[in-house]
Amino acid sequence: MTDYRYWRLNSRPEGHEYAAALSLETAELQTVGDGQVLVQADYLSMDPGVRVWMTAREDSYSPPIPLGTPMQGQFLGPVIESRADGFKVGDIVRGFGHWATHSLVDPVMSGLMVLDPSVRDLRDHFGTLGLNGWTAYCGLVDVLELKEGETVLVSAAAGATGSVACQIARNMGCRVIAIAGSDDKCAWLTETLGVDVAINYKTQNVEAELAKVDGGIDVYFENVGGDLLDAALPNMAMYGRIGISGLIAGYTSDGGLPGPARFDQILMKRLTVKGIFLPDFLAKGVNYYAPLKQWYDEGRLTGDFDETKGMDNVLVAFERLMRGQNLGKVVVDVRN
Amino acid sequence: MTDYRYWRLNSRPEGHEYAAALSLETAELQTVGDGQVLVQADYLSMDPGVRVWMTAREDSYSPPIPLGTPMQGQFLGPVIESRADGFKVGDIVRGFGHWATHSLVDPVMSGLMVLDPSVRDLRDHFGTLGLNGWTAYCGLVDVLELKEGETVLVSAAAGATGSVACQIARNMGCRVIAIAGSDDKCAWLTETLGVDVAINYKTQNVEAELAKVDGGIDVYFENVGGDLLDAALPNMAMYGRIGISGLIAGYTSDGGLPGPARFDQILMKRLTVKGIFLPDFLAKGVNYYAPLKQWYDEGRLTGDFDETKGMDNVLVAFERLMRGQNLGKVVVDVRN
Repeated sequence: MTDYRYWRLNSRPEGHEYAAALSLETAELQTVGDGQVLVQADYLSMDPGVRVWMTAREDSYSPPIPLGTPMQGQFLGPVIESRADGFKVGDIVRGFGHWATHSLVDPVMSGLMVLDPSVRDLRDHFGTLGLNGWTAYCGLVDVLELKEGETVLVSAAAGATGSVACQIARNMGCRVIAIAGSDDKCAWLTETLGVDVAINYKTQNVEAELAKVDGGIDVYFENVGGDLLDAALPNMAMYGRIGISGLIAGYTSDGGLPGPARFDQILMKRLTVKGIFLPDFLAKGVNYYAPLKQWYDEGRLTGDFDETKGMDNVLVAFERLMRGQNLGKVVVDVRN
Repeated sequence: MTDYRYWRLNSRPEGHEYAAALSLETAELQTVGDGQVLVQADYLSMDPGVRVWMTAREDSYSPPIPLGTPMQGQFLGPVIESRADGFKVGDIVRGFGHWATHSLVDPVMSGLMVLDPSVRDLRDHFGTLGLNGWTAYCGLVDVLELKEGETVLVSAAAGATGSVACQIARNMGCRVIAIAGSDDKCAWLTETLGVDVAINYKTQNVEAELAKVDGGIDVYFENVGGDLLDAALPNMAMYGRIGISGLIAGYTSDGGLPGPARFDQILMKRLTVKGIFLPDFLAKGVNYYAPLKQWYDEGRLTGDFDETKGMDNVLVAFERLMRGQNLGKVVVDVRN
């Protein structure tokens, strides 16, 4: 039998005190059962949404992860044993499993997917071509019904999902305004991703900058919430649409974050506000992959990475993500 | 020349200090110009929305009423002189004009409409058959796309708009849950209007009562905001819709009211939140009138009134409305 390593959730973390709540454990791999697939992770994906599941909230979109069990998240790597149709040893796959060196999964429950190994960077199957990209596409195209020529605002724009949202909007002929948390990120957004305006929320007055947007904001792809949402609300165009893809500003607080003080603008401007949650649309994922892959192959969709090495350092990577210290997709290379 | 009386807005009122901000004035009626209509008001309609225009807010759906000018609102009464096509002396009309005994208006600017004088109570042309009824119909049917069998929550349910919303939902085969501010209102809602459940927000825990709603709330017709919205958000059904028709809880505060603390439920439950503003749909008003009038004639749409008598007492009536002391439509009979 082989041992493997995984991060176990022992308690509900306070704020960013992840080391106090999770521990790295070693256990024996179970035998692969009928219909199961064993994957050895090359990479783990760090995603803000899992922070919600760490907390014992009844009203979240996913049930809390039970204490004493492996922390959940996305993995990417080769199949090393398969007793399920459609998956063979050596296939490079992505799925929902654990923050672990190995995940033994039911392919359906795991959303296991065989990946195209010929892409220029395998890690793009997490970000631009993966669930971040799908979320951005689903949100802008299906939920918010983005149209050519509209003005689009994206928060957490240098993050994995936001950076794809910026590029989709740009590729669709929209004017793109991006909010990020450093001058380096803003420079990347304008110079590499081609957004029209990048606003550094740490050094600029976001509301005042948005007030300069001629005609107002038609579509806001929101990943953050809190103050940024309040800065955007009075600067929306009449009949504008806001898609709530994430509210990361509130994920580390048990009480959530205060509601937007400018909530009344929904009435005053007759806005539409909607939640964006990719799993609702997951059956349409192939429809999202195709246009993303085409842009990717044409060089019109690119990503960057914030990579950490080693199973030992998963919590470091996760904290970087949750503190917004990353530019691009946060991944952990767990190969040794 | 004839004198008339009107309420003049002299300053921006603080809270409910209307008497300090408005004064009753007498002036000489102007000559009726070409294309104009002179109406003598029998009744004035008291509407919460005008409270927003009393305040100097740039971000409201209407510009503030200039200081030193007549207070604006809806009137209903006979045409006493007309130099406009389509309106003749003796027609009973409704329109936007002033809190005044007479309004001299441009019919188009005023939205002037000749009314059916044969209805059982002329005042219903303000409430069930008027803009309150139209707002409820527009909101539930056009904006929220209400379907038979859904569970509908209505706040300020004993008010002019809310009471019509309750009856439309009931008539469309929905389960109706109503929130109001007294046991008398709740009794009227269940016994006269036939709602399924009425909750007195002053004596009951609204959130706990809503948690008992099997299957959650599909559609929330919101007139209030604040605590009631927070009580509803975690009790919405997945993919529920919230229409913001009013946020009366915040109208008397310059800073608005705090945003909903449970805003994150929009993401967690993938809700859709939209503003409802009748003027956007006013061209469709005839489409709203017809079904309302049919229910009205069948005895399936009824209203009640909170009537005050006399021009002198307009501010009393308005304060009753803004404090939620009314059951049904608040009108002032300004005939002498």
